[in-house]
Amino acid sequence: MRKRILELLRENGQEPLSGEDISKKLNITRTAVWKHIQALKSEGYEIESLQKRGYILRRIPDRLFPQEIASCLKTKWLGRNICYQEKVDSTNNFAKKLANDGCKDGLLVVAEEQGAGKGRLSRGWISPYAKGIWFSVVLKPPFLPQEASKCTLLAAVAVVKAVNNIKGVKAAIKWPNDILLNGRKMVGILTEMNAEFGHINYVVIGIGINTHASGSDYPPEVRDLAVSVADAARSPFRRVELLAAVLKNMEELYELAVEQGFAFVFDEWRKYSCTLGEKVKVIAPERTYLGTAVDIDSDGLLLVKTNDGHLERVVAGDVSIRPAKTVKGVYQ
Amino acid sequence: MRKRILELLRENGQEPLSGEDISKKLNITRTAVWKHIQALKSEGYEIESLQKRGYILRRIPDRLFPQEIASCLKTKWLGRNICYQEKVDSTNNFAKKLANDGCKDGLLVVAEEQGAGKGRLSRGWISPYAKGIWFSVVLKPPFLPQEASKCTLLAAVAVVKAVNNIKGVKAAIKWPNDILLNGRKMVGILTEMNAEFGHINYVVIGIGINTHASGSDYPPEVRDLAVSVADAARSPFRRVELLAAVLKNMEELYELAVEQGFAFVFDEWRKYSCTLGEKVKVIAPERTYLGTAVDIDSDGLLLVKTNDGHLERVVAGDVSIRPAKTVKGVYQ
Repeated sequence: MRKRILELLRENGQEPLSGEDISKKLNITRTAVWKHIQALKSEGYEIESLQKRGYILRRIPDRLFPQEIASCLKTKWLGRNICYQEKVDSTNNFAKKLANDGCKDGLLVVAEEQGAGKGRLSRGWISPYAKGIWFSVVLKPPFLPQEASKCTLLAAVAVVKAVNNIKGVKAAIKWPNDILLNGRKMVGILTEMNAEFGHINYVVIGIGINTHASGSDYPPEVRDLAVSVADAARSPFRRVELLAAVLKNMEELYELAVEQGFAFVFDEWRKYSCTLGEKVKVIAPERTYLGTAVDIDSDGLLLVKTNDGHLERVVAGDVSIRPAKTVKGVYQ
Repeated sequence: MRKRILELLRENGQEPLSGEDISKKLNITRTAVWKHIQALKSEGYEIESLQKRGYILRRIPDRLFPQEIASCLKTKWLGRNICYQEKVDSTNNFAKKLANDGCKDGLLVVAEEQGAGKGRLSRGWISPYAKGIWFSVVLKPPFLPQEASKCTLLAAVAVVKAVNNIKGVKAAIKWPNDILLNGRKMVGILTEMNAEFGHINYVVIGIGINTHASGSDYPPEVRDLAVSVADAARSPFRRVELLAAVLKNMEELYELAVEQGFAFVFDEWRKYSCTLGEKVKVIAPERTYLGTAVDIDSDGLLLVKTNDGHLERVVAGDVSIRPAKTVKGVYQ
């Protein structure tokens, strides 16, 4: 009901809308209208009450409320079910629980803050209150488990295209799926999969976009490694709109991948990559070596031509770009 | 301590071992020895007390107690940590919880009964008390997520070799990993994986071996589809020994696969398959078709030559062998 009242107020723009009109349109009592308006105010909506004329929505709070996301979402199914948490340990863990309980394909879990955000390879991810977009989506792809990890590259493309639409932002993808701006980390992605033989039960893609965190939001040792969208943006942007843009890109790329495979996604990934063509240092479990990143293979694994002329497929471990265009960590 | 008392009694065979000897060897009081003996009796161990001469272990209960498994286990690491549950909802679910909490590679979860045993594709699995071996192992393979589903074929080979070592049992593997005896289902396997990009967090292989369940253990509609090891066995066998044999096979095959890839495992699988060379009906998500199963590919997927001459790769859905050498279900 609150969502519908907001819709009416939004439609009316800067014209007042009377409590009576609202009560008639939604078939609820005037008292109910008043109560909902009070609740919206307590959530941070600035709603002006003009005596005898009605209500005007003056300002929307900078929160990732489902009704706010929904009001700018242009997807068909992705993110159409939203689970909003003011604070959660990890959106990925929460999403996995819901997925284990049989949630719908395309569910979005979003939080203002993560108490124990997770990055790849058991690393942490710092997620301060309302300073980023910390979210996870649940997908139930029809393709084979062998293909699932390609979704992580897909997610990186979806995000980089969305952030680069903001004036002043020119980010790039570091293999496989970190998003960097001037060598500093702006976005981390963690894709987790649950599968059985020949069948993916679900994929959870967790994405942390640092929109506003800086300086003291981070421990001293990683401060210089992080960057926010706001650091680069030359025009204001809203978190909900950025989130909606990411979801729209993701849905389009995903539907394409389901229909035609990942070739297009990989081509897009190559376009936005800041790893390919660069000198890299690969810290693999068993050894460390230097080389040049030449391409990704059909599984999305990095192909590195080593300094002694071999072609290596990087399957695990850290890759850092030399000279340091990238950074390890940010508690990634 | 109880395990060590059992070891001493076992070593002594049918000779009595005095309480005093036990108390000296284990450095505990006579009262403590007596208490442990009482506890063992209450677990079903038949221990005879001969006045002034000591204790003799007469009979071991038919339970999957860790000390019993350990006493016949010949593996290096697989199953060396055992979590025994008299009753559990599902050993796979339990194992996944322990894996999420960071359990060791090779952990074994075993139960006498499952309240909600799980089969492939969200089917159930009937697991009555002490009438089968219901267990799961947690593996943390070094290979890529792309390879994980091959573990399910590996598990099938490990089980079929172990059951066929019992006199009278001649079972075969139905693609991908059911084990049949005369067309009836004796064993089901459910492999679940948790992975991120380029890295398997863990694989849980759940195996249900029906050793003794029959008739009224099953609902009427599936009675004719199930068979137990005891139905075919022409000599007595112990559940713990069968379990230990499966684990031994599994460890050997797994170490080979990690070192040299899955070629050997797949060759073994082909030897024991009752699917290859047979007329099959494939019920795929989008259509049903008839053909002949000709091979498995390098991912372990079934290759079927359809009646109109195409080669199809079966990636999901049911495969039944015509004429019915196999059965769907047993609440699989």
